[in-house]
Amino acid sequence: MAAPDGPILKDGLVENSIGRFVPTSTPQGRRVRPYRGLHSPPEVMRGIGRPLRRSVPPENKVVEGIEAAIKKVELSDGMVISFHHHLRNGDLVVNMVLDAIHKMGIKDIGLFPTALFPIHEHLIPYIKDGTIRWIEGSLNGPLGKFASEGGLLPYPVILRTHGGRTRAIEAGDVEIDVAFIAASAADQAGNMTGAVGPSAFGAMGFAFADAWYAKKVVVVTDNLVPYPCTPISIPSTYVDVVAKVDRIGDPEGIGWGTTQITRDPKMLMVARRVIEVLDAAGYLKDGFSFQAGAGGTSLAVVKYLGDYFKEKGIVGSFAMGGTTGYVVRMLEEGTIRAILDAQAFDLEAIQSLTRNPNHMEVSHHHFGNPHTGGPITHQQTACFLGATEVDIDFNVNVNTHSNGYLLHGTGGHTDAAVGSEVTIITAPLIRGRIPVVRERVTTVTTPGEAVDVVVTDHGIAVNPRREDLLESLKRAKLPLVDIEELMKKARRLVGREMTADVGDEVIAIIEYRTGEAIDSVFRVK
Amino acid sequence: MAAPDGPILKDGLVENSIGRFVPTSTPQGRRVRPYRGLHSPPEVMRGIGRPLRRSVPPENKVVEGIEAAIKKVELSDGMVISFHHHLRNGDLVVNMVLDAIHKMGIKDIGLFPTALFPIHEHLIPYIKDGTIRWIEGSLNGPLGKFASEGGLLPYPVILRTHGGRTRAIEAGDVEIDVAFIAASAADQAGNMTGAVGPSAFGAMGFAFADAWYAKKVVVVTDNLVPYPCTPISIPSTYVDVVAKVDRIGDPEGIGWGTTQITRDPKMLMVARRVIEVLDAAGYLKDGFSFQAGAGGTSLAVVKYLGDYFKEKGIVGSFAMGGTTGYVVRMLEEGTIRAILDAQAFDLEAIQSLTRNPNHMEVSHHHFGNPHTGGPITHQQTACFLGATEVDIDFNVNVNTHSNGYLLHGTGGHTDAAVGSEVTIITAPLIRGRIPVVRERVTTVTTPGEAVDVVVTDHGIAVNPRREDLLESLKRAKLPLVDIEELMKKARRLVGREMTADVGDEVIAIIEYRTGEAIDSVFRVK
Repeated sequence: MAAPDGPILKDGLVENSIGRFVPTSTPQGRRVRPYRGLHSPPEVMRGIGRPLRRSVPPENKVVEGIEAAIKKVELSDGMVISFHHHLRNGDLVVNMVLDAIHKMGIKDIGLFPTALFPIHEHLIPYIKDGTIRWIEGSLNGPLGKFASEGGLLPYPVILRTHGGRTRAIEAGDVEIDVAFIAASAADQAGNMTGAVGPSAFGAMGFAFADAWYAKKVVVVTDNLVPYPCTPISIPSTYVDVVAKVDRIGDPEGIGWGTTQITRDPKMLMVARRVIEVLDAAGYLKDGFSFQAGAGGTSLAVVKYLGDYFKEKGIVGSFAMGGTTGYVVRMLEEGTIRAILDAQAFDLEAIQSLTRNPNHMEVSHHHFGNPHTGGPITHQQTACFLGATEVDIDFNVNVNTHSNGYLLHGTGGHTDAAVGSEVTIITAPLIRGRIPVVRERVTTVTTPGEAVDVVVTDHGIAVNPRREDLLESLKRAKLPLVDIEELMKKARRLVGREMTADVGDEVIAIIEYRTGEAIDSVFRVK
Repeated sequence: MAAPDGPILKDGLVENSIGRFVPTSTPQGRRVRPYRGLHSPPEVMRGIGRPLRRSVPPENKVVEGIEAAIKKVELSDGMVISFHHHLRNGDLVVNMVLDAIHKMGIKDIGLFPTALFPIHEHLIPYIKDGTIRWIEGSLNGPLGKFASEGGLLPYPVILRTHGGRTRAIEAGDVEIDVAFIAASAADQAGNMTGAVGPSAFGAMGFAFADAWYAKKVVVVTDNLVPYPCTPISIPSTYVDVVAKVDRIGDPEGIGWGTTQITRDPKMLMVARRVIEVLDAAGYLKDGFSFQAGAGGTSLAVVKYLGDYFKEKGIVGSFAMGGTTGYVVRMLEEGTIRAILDAQAFDLEAIQSLTRNPNHMEVSHHHFGNPHTGGPITHQQTACFLGATEVDIDFNVNVNTHSNGYLLHGTGGHTDAAVGSEVTIITAPLIRGRIPVVRERVTTVTTPGEAVDVVVTDHGIAVNPRREDLLESLKRAKLPLVDIEELMKKARRLVGREMTADVGDEVIAIIEYRTGEAIDSVFRVK
């Protein structure tokens, strides 16, 4: 395994505009710019061009299995390959492709998935033996732990928001050599969808940018259908090879870790408080739109919102997915007019996509790329999001735990927070014996400038820059509390804050959606 | 009006691989490559990049009227502007925009429409006074006549196929400064569609490439709808301004010149012969797919095909539109499984698009760009297309009349012909007193290498390279005739062929779909 430079060390970092320290370049060759604020413009006027190809009819792109596909696209040492995570913890494709790459003796792969899950712990031996050189993408669970302990050094993982990842591809920050795109149905020319078939996973929003820009595109499917695939999410024009395999995934794994509504009475109370906040601030009226995070409290908010709208006869505008049955219910009851869906979190979302014309599949480019004419997140009234930590500057951490371990991806958190008129973070004041509200978050995922309200089981804190909200909530006699008070209360309840015991080596960079580095994550000692 | 060089003259042309003479550059700055064969690869590996933008929420892009939009995108002298022609002869947007440009004193505009129609004769004064400098696009009727008489000199019109025009944009051959995209519904962020609204025109296949690549995009709509527009054909991410106007078009004009089935008994006989040819050659079976031209004979073929499939219980695969009620009928009767629709030719097509999930909107990139991973036309079994002239090398002309006048666009003719397994040209042997089958076509639109069968009211000619077809049709005792015999018969019936009385100045270039010049059109004396 090549290691052109040692790991990035703390004393080589520069300070960004919110006082966090970040690198300016990485051993895998990324130039990094420090975060300067919410809306930095693109660095160049035009993105990278799409690859041009030559098509000669008649064409049949089907090959049997992954090895044949790898040969056909001439995948070789040092190339960058990408994957989407719509099959989440039920995904079989990433492991299958890396098994083949390993078997074929290809080395030094740059792995550029949207996100990896516990099922991908399988890859650790391939990191150790040099098959995989670096990873840029969200690491959920074991691979995050492995990275935190230095397993990927000297290469830092780069974590991007959903909108930021498509931005990075479109701007040419990351060039993909081969995109492997799991599809639950595809035809011989490569027209594909995730909406139908035995391994259906719904909208395939992550895959669009990879298909548009990768030098070679391999569709991996267990369901070859007669031409034309119906519906067509991504067209044949972006496809080089269709690899037929036995099984792309286990649909049971799609909802992993996301679709259980909370059963914790104090978090159900927090969810109710969110409705009260929105009500008091006057947001709950016809035309209201929202995005909910994947956590159990956010799901509870959606449920209560549906109940509220139904009771009051309000018709909202749209819900932006990750889509769940709770949102589908609102569409079907007529309390929202449309679902814009970039990824499904449960079976009801998958089924609704093909059934209801007002449930529309969108790309993550459309969802959240800020360097466009305007993504969906910039039209949202509200979002309800979770946190592992929140600090007194309203900065939010969703990536690391207070012990310093990198265990979660960024997802659409930052995109939603920055885009929405009102961004509400829901969190318990204390989780286990660990304070959630702190003086300083271990890692900044979403900057406090983009956060308006923090609703906890010990009161509601409003970002002082939102005087209007503060005024409305006061009038409604909601239990307001200063965020510093929350921090102090948490300290009082559990003693001092946990401080991560970390070293000097940067194991990950948190990239803000415009491509600037908002924070670094350090190796856990 | 700037005229950097004189017109391109005959003696400066070079010969291409089918013996036609073409320029190597033009005064508007295009480099032109001579045609070398059906499947020339792209010249470069990557296309031009998309423009990057900066989006800051909340956004409302709506302005009142065209002048406000022109100011907002800073349209200025010498810029290139583009339009789609989905509203065909009912389009009000092109004239409206050029009226505003003229009123505002902007000059030297490069006009890059997909096609112009008789209603756009209105632009002639703007060409004469220097508001419009050059035009690249299909000219149907009066503007073609005007160009043929030298009205646009020294600038040649460049006519492209539907697939070839998106190729030219994606490769960066033509850079669009401002795309004006008519939409029958759009929201404040610019999400748009042609499928619904009082001026609905159906699929908006032409507009995708313009939206993707134009430096600025203005949506022009008479139907501002609440966010999000439903359905969304082109997303807000590509849009800078939404211009609200009173009326974008007259839906009655959409079907102009295209949707009447022929009433000519000899052409109805020709249409029946096409079915016999396909039947004899063994093509008419489950999985059959086709594209029909917009002419009255092609429509008759579709009708007979629908009858045949219904009678025999055959289920075809797909029809590629220009979509008509005849194709919709097949989908609804279950004799085809899907319609892939890039443009509508009548009201039934428009209505079906929103009603039937197997009727899918596609871009012209997907329809026919040969420099991709594979467009739809490359998957077609058959196409039935018209001609103004056919010659003994099976070259087809659809652009000029035998008197030399440029009166028609290329459309998808060449894309369909090159892509399909079997390409059938339908034509009367003589039209008026003018032979259609000739020794040499006045202008080559589609090269004979891509044409398999010519069906006339005086017999069926098969391209000798298709020995297999010849054999099948002989066995079926169809009235085969050598193409030279057809030519001679036409001469016998009407005396000598008409020869266009043209001068030395090139008024138009016919660009083949890969970007190579296949022929030149000369000024009519």
